[in-house]
Amino acid sequence: VRGAAPVEGLYERLLAGDRRAAARLITMVENGDPEARNILRQLHRHSGKAHIVGLTGPPGSGKSTLACRLAGRFRLEGRTVGIVAVDPTSPYTGGALLGDRVRMQDLADDPEVFIRSMGSRGALGGLSVATNDVINILDAFGKDYIIVETVGAGQVEVEVVKFSHTCVVVAMPGGGDEIQAIKAGILEIGDIFVVNKADREGAQRTMADLEMMLETKPALDASSWKPRVVATVAVDGGGMDDLAGAIQGHWEYLVESGLLEQKTIQRMKAELISILNLRVSKAAARALEDKDTGEELLRRMAARDIDPHSAAEEVERLIVREARL
Amino acid sequence: VRGAAPVEGLYERLLAGDRRAAARLITMVENGDPEARNILRQLHRHSGKAHIVGLTGPPGSGKSTLACRLAGRFRLEGRTVGIVAVDPTSPYTGGALLGDRVRMQDLADDPEVFIRSMGSRGALGGLSVATNDVINILDAFGKDYIIVETVGAGQVEVEVVKFSHTCVVVAMPGGGDEIQAIKAGILEIGDIFVVNKADREGAQRTMADLEMMLETKPALDASSWKPRVVATVAVDGGGMDDLAGAIQGHWEYLVESGLLEQKTIQRMKAELISILNLRVSKAAARALEDKDTGEELLRRMAARDIDPHSAAEEVERLIVREARL
Repeated sequence: VRGAAPVEGLYERLLAGDRRAAARLITMVENGDPEARNILRQLHRHSGKAHIVGLTGPPGSGKSTLACRLAGRFRLEGRTVGIVAVDPTSPYTGGALLGDRVRMQDLADDPEVFIRSMGSRGALGGLSVATNDVINILDAFGKDYIIVETVGAGQVEVEVVKFSHTCVVVAMPGGGDEIQAIKAGILEIGDIFVVNKADREGAQRTMADLEMMLETKPALDASSWKPRVVATVAVDGGGMDDLAGAIQGHWEYLVESGLLEQKTIQRMKAELISILNLRVSKAAARALEDKDTGEELLRRMAARDIDPHSAAEEVERLIVREARL
Repeated sequence: VRGAAPVEGLYERLLAGDRRAAARLITMVENGDPEARNILRQLHRHSGKAHIVGLTGPPGSGKSTLACRLAGRFRLEGRTVGIVAVDPTSPYTGGALLGDRVRMQDLADDPEVFIRSMGSRGALGGLSVATNDVINILDAFGKDYIIVETVGAGQVEVEVVKFSHTCVVVAMPGGGDEIQAIKAGILEIGDIFVVNKADREGAQRTMADLEMMLETKPALDASSWKPRVVATVAVDGGGMDDLAGAIQGHWEYLVESGLLEQKTIQRMKAELISILNLRVSKAAARALEDKDTGEELLRRMAARDIDPHSAAEEVERLIVREARL
């Protein structure tokens, strides 16, 4: 374990490009350190330049390898990259999870690639907030691309869309089972669809299925973005030019159409609401732990004297009255 | 489309066992009908008897078929069953999705089985709240078991655990790819693990892997629940006796250990907090739409004049001051 960087001067050192300062601040965010909040406030004005790319898909679709290969591809153009690997099903946090795959792909020694795994440890429902904080830190740290990789089908993807400029949905070749993961809801959120492991049997069919599904999705108008389908073989780097091109194409579309500003506003709204939700959850948890009011309320709920919606209104009054928010 | 049941007398008809009344109230809940809230309040005292069983696993693991087979198994004992199929990736809501599978398995005509699919349509971040409302309705409607099926890996499962008494995690036989879905986080939440499609190659190995992983998980004490691993072939009903037995065994454990009350309190807390979060999200969305205050705040965020955490505090003040909560 390397020695922890001191908190003093963290802001300045981070802006000067000190990786250890960035890593330290991220750890502080994950630990809920109140000092982190102050530094985040100062850092905010330096963020807002990065292209945030969400990468999501079912377990086993090769997202991590794809993220690393994509980072390598961006590096060929001299662009800098942050990778945030979010796994709500893992209690682990830190750099360990991606370690092996990364070393394999020669990214580990590149000072212009910053990789961080985030699990549910300590995040206590605050994983969305912590993920956004980390995105903002890497943005202020000067990374050109920030790849946010999440496992999922479900709510998590929806969050990824809200937090990213470009949403990449990863699928694998396969029969009916795997295509189940590509449902209407997923079609809605993807700007780019990747069929990874495209050297496997059935890749052509999966590509065709996806393209057909996307055909039936009505375009808003002639100028609106048409989702792209890209084939990749992440393990040997196949298809990375196509994928990088599609991602850059989507960014150009956002800039030229004027939608980038709208996306930014959407991202900020989603971030605001996730912060508010976390604050309210914490305030409510504190209120419910109160011996006199909170425990009494839970007893009344258990005795079926009060229903959950009415109880929520009571907790709200408790929180507001006692300024616990 | 059958005619909608009238709202008047819905409460009485639901308690009298009228399925159409239950279906109508659920639709009202999904549409955010304010009248539904009043009926839910009245119904609350009639709920609290059902055994709520969460069923989760990756896409393609056969959860829906398993849920239907399990319902059929419970019916053999004369118990009544509700199935709530929650799919946050689907925009669809209603009875349609499960329809074919259900008809196939002769459950559709059984008046003692109530099946409902819930998608993200209109739920607007309120899927957790709506799911809990539906659980409570089916509980008051007198169902002995309520099976809550969700697709996932991710946050969704964690929600399922919070809302259920017994959490069943479904896996499939397979190599490294599929086992990725069974990670530390998932091991923590499962009370029962099912290897479905157990007639496929590799089932023995997946069972052994799971059992080994569970061995390494330290038991809290000698009397604490030891997670069970069950093999099933849901398509032909194989293993359903084992699965039903494990689920009933877990319920007996909860009752005998006195943990049932603790679980109930946990469920209520989770429900309270999800209601609060939805209320705050809605209040914040309204506040942000306000021309003078909300839009100005978003402009300042976009201009990097104010950081997201400070902005969240401002929205909180707006909400409290204007009693928008």
